[in-house]
Amino acid sequence: MARYVLKFGGTSVANVTRLRHVAHIIKKQADAGHQIIVVVSAMAGITNELVDYAHSLCPDKLSPEHDVVLSSGEQVTSGLLALALSQLGLKSRSYLAWQVPILTDDTPSQARILTIPTQGLEACLSQNIIPVIAGFQGLNPQNRLTTLGRGGSDTTAVALAAALAADRCDIYTDVDGVYTADPRLVAKACKLPQITYAEMFEMAAQGAKVLQARSVELAMKHKVKLRVLSSFVEVSGTDVVEERNFVESTCISGIADNQNEVRITVKGIPNQVGMVAEIFGSLAQNSIPLDMIVQNQVIDGRVDLTFTLRQSDLERAQHVLKDLQKKLPFSHLEIDPDIVKISVIGIGMRSNLEMGSLLFKTLADHNIAIQLITTSEIKISVILDKQHTDLAVNALHQAFQLERG
Amino acid sequence: MARYVLKFGGTSVANVTRLRHVAHIIKKQADAGHQIIVVVSAMAGITNELVDYAHSLCPDKLSPEHDVVLSSGEQVTSGLLALALSQLGLKSRSYLAWQVPILTDDTPSQARILTIPTQGLEACLSQNIIPVIAGFQGLNPQNRLTTLGRGGSDTTAVALAAALAADRCDIYTDVDGVYTADPRLVAKACKLPQITYAEMFEMAAQGAKVLQARSVELAMKHKVKLRVLSSFVEVSGTDVVEERNFVESTCISGIADNQNEVRITVKGIPNQVGMVAEIFGSLAQNSIPLDMIVQNQVIDGRVDLTFTLRQSDLERAQHVLKDLQKKLPFSHLEIDPDIVKISVIGIGMRSNLEMGSLLFKTLADHNIAIQLITTSEIKISVILDKQHTDLAVNALHQAFQLERG
Repeated sequence: MARYVLKFGGTSVANVTRLRHVAHIIKKQADAGHQIIVVVSAMAGITNELVDYAHSLCPDKLSPEHDVVLSSGEQVTSGLLALALSQLGLKSRSYLAWQVPILTDDTPSQARILTIPTQGLEACLSQNIIPVIAGFQGLNPQNRLTTLGRGGSDTTAVALAAALAADRCDIYTDVDGVYTADPRLVAKACKLPQITYAEMFEMAAQGAKVLQARSVELAMKHKVKLRVLSSFVEVSGTDVVEERNFVESTCISGIADNQNEVRITVKGIPNQVGMVAEIFGSLAQNSIPLDMIVQNQVIDGRVDLTFTLRQSDLERAQHVLKDLQKKLPFSHLEIDPDIVKISVIGIGMRSNLEMGSLLFKTLADHNIAIQLITTSEIKISVILDKQHTDLAVNALHQAFQLERG
Repeated sequence: MARYVLKFGGTSVANVTRLRHVAHIIKKQADAGHQIIVVVSAMAGITNELVDYAHSLCPDKLSPEHDVVLSSGEQVTSGLLALALSQLGLKSRSYLAWQVPILTDDTPSQARILTIPTQGLEACLSQNIIPVIAGFQGLNPQNRLTTLGRGGSDTTAVALAAALAADRCDIYTDVDGVYTADPRLVAKACKLPQITYAEMFEMAAQGAKVLQARSVELAMKHKVKLRVLSSFVEVSGTDVVEERNFVESTCISGIADNQNEVRITVKGIPNQVGMVAEIFGSLAQNSIPLDMIVQNQVIDGRVDLTFTLRQSDLERAQHVLKDLQKKLPFSHLEIDPDIVKISVIGIGMRSNLEMGSLLFKTLADHNIAIQLITTSEIKISVILDKQHTDLAVNALHQAFQLERG
């Protein structure tokens, strides 16, 4: 008998038909004699709707009330799936985060899990009851609801798998694994049978939507075996592992594209000590994470600062920066929403200097201008004009010989 | 300084515009120096949607999971309204039932409030924070969510007003008070400035949708002053009081119509001891409340039993009765969904025998056949063919001289 955490994303539970189908997937595992813990997201589209409501009432800041509103979606799914399981004759019950409890810190909208006492869940499992846990939610020290950030249900699933010492954490989604590039952009994209935690983390961080980056980080830390697979088709998925078998010659695991970022340049900042800290500090205080950051050269005692952030944070970031302008008289903001971030990812990167050259040469050959560059041990990311997305991803996929799969 | 509980129903919080308007109503009371406790329903339409989901997954019985699904609607509203209040510069926070806590028994979908510890809310009020409490929800002894039945937010509001010794409980809705009849049916219906608890209870129980009957019962028991008023127009509402001032000659307070019931006749039941208890016991065990009940005469050792129940319970009732047929071989079921229950209500009924005669004569004069009759101290109800609703209500409204208002 093995113990598995099964997590089902928003499209997997989008309607009553899908919920019934998911119940059958769970039943199959339970019938095989395994102990099953289920984690669910909100039904597809619900969270966006709730975000819109909250945003139109309170556009300029995040409060604990946003978490109260947003976490309701997962509550609905957990109750509905428990109903669907009981209709198949399985014993099950829903658990909300405050009932488990999943204890977090008190950062609104981006809470971090502190600990998960498991006595209640263990008692539930020992009675052959399948717990259906609302993902994405937590309970803070003030006894109030928190949420774990977009895609937070993945983190809930991995944290539970770690706390309950599960044999594996299966992430069911609407794609059947991790691909070398977005299959909607690259017709020849191949599914990877295996990918390392480090590569998966970069893929997720750079825009591949299949897993939340934080959940991969957590899985890596606690050595939780992860499997990404589809709830729509029954085919083998992708295993996220510590070290992958090098059966292929390429050292690049994939190409990620992220079209949900926007570039901001703060122009003409007086070049004084602490100025950068002031700007980034204000954004951080408002829980606005930045991605790529570039500081230009000082000209006439003034400097430009360029960074990228999520489109969904743009409005709040503009508020924060306009406020800051009173204290730090920069000249103006330049905003470009028409960008794409393309990242080439692979554990081979660190030992292979030619990868960067190949990336830049390929883009140059296609007359694609690079706006920003960042690199890490296992990835290179570039910002391009959004219109080049298709051309760039396909050209790079071919150049890095990812088609052979 | 007075302490008021303000309760806002589904249409009052149906969208972001309505929520902002409600926030202004609350601000006006808070600015006048009053202590305000807010109770909210789900946004109009949400609960029906959630019921449909749960029902299509599990049509034949109610489980605690239904409560988990259904209670999410009020959670959303409480968070959103707290956001709207904070945008007006008011200190506020949402409270879910498990946070207050509102402690109930463990009857799924129809839980009863046992007690409400108020230390948390009192501390909140003493810091000038307006609590926005999710109505309709409760927490049972097993630490699981419950719901209080349709319209349960009224009961939450009244129970909180009693527990917190509030000076009044204002029920904001989409009508501006209690009328002598449904204004959509009777053009000359008049708003009542006052109505007694007993009359209001019967009006609610007999189908007037303005207040949940249980909440009126609770208000009567704890002498909570109730006011029914509109969140859409600023006019005086109706006060629900212990004794009303008889400024008018009529002793009838109003006419209620209920088109949401269905009539079932169980035909040809073997006439044996305990047979009625068997049938009603089975329905009660499945939490299906009956309204009017009539047992026909025994013919050839067999008897017919007729009763009415809510349309929404019909499908489950049919299941229960079909099951019962194996044990208690009745011949068949007759179901008539095309009925209306019309009730004439007034504290004068008990001392005025002519009221019944006037009711029956009026219907006879209009050739309207009566199918069933029940009476109580302060009301007479009749079941008619649904097509006569309009004619019957208007004829009775005129006959009982309710137009003078």
